Amino acid sequence: MAEDRATFGADLHLELRGGTLRTGLMDALREAIRSGRLEAGVRLPSSRALAVDLGVARNTVADAYAELVAEGWLTARQGSGTRVARRSVPRRPPAPGARPGAARTPAVRPPTARPTYSLKPGVPDLASFPRAEWLKASRRALTAAPNEAFGYGDPRGRIELRTVLAEYLARARGVYARPERIVVCSGFVHGLMLMGQVLRARQVRAVAVESYGLDVHGDLLTGAGLRLPALPFDERGTRTEELAAMKDVGAVLLTAAHQFPLGGALTPDRRAAVVDWARASGGLVLEDDYDGEFRYDRQPVGALQGLDPERVVYLGTSSKSLAPGLRLAWMVLPEGLVDEVVAAKGAVDWVSSSLEQLTFAEFLASGAYDRHVRAMRLRYRRRRDQLVEAVAAHSPATRVSGIAAGLHAVLELPPGSEPDVLRSAAWQGLALLGVDRFRHPEVTPTLDGLVVGYATPPDSAWAGALAALCRVLP
Amino acid sequence: MAEDRATFGADLHLELRGGTLRTGLMDALREAIRSGRLEAGVRLPSSRALAVDLGVARNTVADAYAELVAEGWLTARQGSGTRVARRSVPRRPPAPGARPGAARTPAVRPPTARPTYSLKPGVPDLASFPRAEWLKASRRALTAAPNEAFGYGDPRGRIELRTVLAEYLARARGVYARPERIVVCSGFVHGLMLMGQVLRARQVRAVAVESYGLDVHGDLLTGAGLRLPALPFDERGTRTEELAAMKDVGAVLLTAAHQFPLGGALTPDRRAAVVDWARASGGLVLEDDYDGEFRYDRQPVGALQGLDPERVVYLGTSSKSLAPGLRLAWMVLPEGLVDEVVAAKGAVDWVSSSLEQLTFAEFLASGAYDRHVRAMRLRYRRRRDQLVEAVAAHSPATRVSGIAAGLHAVLELPPGSEPDVLRSAAWQGLALLGVDRFRHPEVTPTLDGLVVGYATPPDSAWAGALAALCRVLP
Repeated sequence: MAEDRATFGADLHLELRGGTLRTGLMDALREAIRSGRLEAGVRLPSSRALAVDLGVARNTVADAYAELVAEGWLTARQGSGTRVARRSVPRRPPAPGARPGAARTPAVRPPTARPTYSLKPGVPDLASFPRAEWLKASRRALTAAPNEAFGYGDPRGRIELRTVLAEYLARARGVYARPERIVVCSGFVHGLMLMGQVLRARQVRAVAVESYGLDVHGDLLTGAGLRLPALPFDERGTRTEELAAMKDVGAVLLTAAHQFPLGGALTPDRRAAVVDWARASGGLVLEDDYDGEFRYDRQPVGALQGLDPERVVYLGTSSKSLAPGLRLAWMVLPEGLVDEVVAAKGAVDWVSSSLEQLTFAEFLASGAYDRHVRAMRLRYRRRRDQLVEAVAAHSPATRVSGIAAGLHAVLELPPGSEPDVLRSAAWQGLALLGVDRFRHPEVTPTLDGLVVGYATPPDSAWAGALAALCRVLP
Repeated sequence: MAEDRATFGADLHLELRGGTLRTGLMDALREAIRSGRLEAGVRLPSSRALAVDLGVARNTVADAYAELVAEGWLTARQGSGTRVARRSVPRRPPAPGARPGAARTPAVRPPTARPTYSLKPGVPDLASFPRAEWLKASRRALTAAPNEAFGYGDPRGRIELRTVLAEYLARARGVYARPERIVVCSGFVHGLMLMGQVLRARQVRAVAVESYGLDVHGDLLTGAGLRLPALPFDERGTRTEELAAMKDVGAVLLTAAHQFPLGGALTPDRRAAVVDWARASGGLVLEDDYDGEFRYDRQPVGALQGLDPERVVYLGTSSKSLAPGLRLAWMVLPEGLVDEVVAAKGAVDWVSSSLEQLTFAEFLASGAYDRHVRAMRLRYRRRRDQLVEAVAAHSPATRVSGIAAGLHAVLELPPGSEPDVLRSAAWQGLALLGVDRFRHPEVTPTLDGLVVGYATPPDSAWAGALAALCRVLP
């Protein structure tokens, strides 16, 4: 029944099993190698070609290849492409000191010979989740919850949560928030999906996006039938003043407080330009405030939404400030949009767990959320400083940018060197992403760089990850 | 910006605000009455007409009308339709003894003069949620959770939960379940939505459904572009033997263990007929096992899925056995479907809270789930027996059916009397649903009856609800 099959080499069938597409592909490749169906030395198809065969994103395949190289299953040498390692390693750890295949392919390392570090952006330090405080909050929530909280919930989310969120967002992010304008969702992606439906229903044809961003967001909107013209950018950031000249654009998606992935806040004149465009054109601004709480050298930049609550849809999340595993995010909507978003959400039973919502409400109301964000801000700032120092020491020529805020920084590389650096990172067992994978397809590549998620490793792995990073820098 | 406007009467605009469509409509109507824009005595449009104006389901409007009649804002008299009550009541409770408008419209009661009871089906007794046991489970889950559990999760759901679910479903429901075939979802509706996408992608055109069922399920599948031919039924239940003769049907949706709402289990010969059809035609069976744990007079009927795990998609939920507010449900899939369902789910970030999943896994593994289900089975059985006795005593002519299992029973009414009984129930302040609202549009009405959800009220309200019910029976 499985349709996801790709044939290459002789007549090798690659069958993706469960999990994410990436892990499914990795498992399938490991299995094919272990079983000998993929012989040592066989050259794999290019990530682009295999992506087409499997009908998945190229990045998915590229990531799977890079991680399998890091694990020693595959080798990647410039010019000769990606091949099955001469002696691919067994799953069990080798005897101490043993270096399987070392003689013939010294560069291939067994996956267990050294830990694989990750400096991929997008996740906070998961080891720092405040378990004890969260448990206290759930106890209070479970004790205080009215019986109806265990029933089918209001699609806007629990009123207790929307009430404390309104207070918090006004205080911490300068958001004009009232509980009746807030809709709880299961993540930014969920909120964006709802907005995609609403925009299409309003006959919007195109949503302008930044030159660099997350492809999953783009795929979601194009999947909703929207065109995604890219806003040009310059050294000062996204050129929102170009919005007025773009055709058919009914909305714009912006990471105004901290551009993802390049970093930097939208400049005041360009914040004004967005709002002016929205007012003049009747367009909407979708503000992705994914990590607005984390700013290190001065006060956080307030949300764009405060400038015009009737034109800006604010989207916030607990995924960076607390944990993605909670699936708790929120939208603050223009009054006139509430009914449409609720209708889009209410059509399916999509409400987050009411207990989780009530727990988060208690967590917020008790001040535990503020304390956690403060503590993490200090920790991440320390890591950022260590990153900047280490790079300055090992690779003085490498400029570190986008460091004023957030959980990641950009290391600018010499033109054309990004692929090589990523490849050697994979060899080092270091999972890393370059800026190019975030590039809008219509934007001509002009940047080479690494997007370093310095929040990602647990404290125990931070030093090692930083050292591995320094080894791969020019 | 609000598009949801309907005009009727003079030039009255009705604006739906947030909440569910039903509550939004009720608020809008109350506001229109309170403000005087809807004058006393004004006749409202028929629920059908208003539903068309607002673009909502007729049942939504009918429910809102019925509840506003129960609250005393509207009056409903046979022949004269639904009108604004002569003296619509203020929100604050009247002075003790005062009966506002009693003189002129004795039948109109203030909403606060007596509690509104609900015997609507579809929710368990929310007051019985095992808060203490659940808190214990969350403590264990929070203590044991690996750090990665706080990150972005596998779209199939937490392996810890899928592992204990596989064991539980095999033991309690006779499901052939292996963790890698299980996909956790946020409710039956979520699972059905995923299946709708997968079926469409497989070029399936039609899904056969039962003659009586939930319109939300139908809307979901038609929204996915599927036709929904109805399977005929007789006194022995759904005539699955007719499947072979239906054109273009690629799947069938069945409540095999306990037909919703009519009650009764699919007979053995008809269970066999479904599987034979699926094998012969390559079709899929979608088994909605919403309350399979609750059977009172003999052992639960095992899931249909056990007969052919490669042809049956099993969908289970915690919404009836525990609480809808948890948003925890599960699918057990044919091996060949796993990748497609995971791809459909993974496309957006849709994973339930990992902490909630781990808590439920602990709750299941500790035996607390089995204990809770056993306790509720006894409680619901007692209520069912009291319902049967009360009906026999007050309305001997009324036959009670579908009582062998589940959280609701059907009270069969004399032909044509269902609307009157529902109307007088509304007058009694009793929220009730009739079988007709569950009828497939293509099925000619032959049944009159009430679908009584005897699990719905808390213990404190059960006796009152039962008394109110008896008052409205012929």
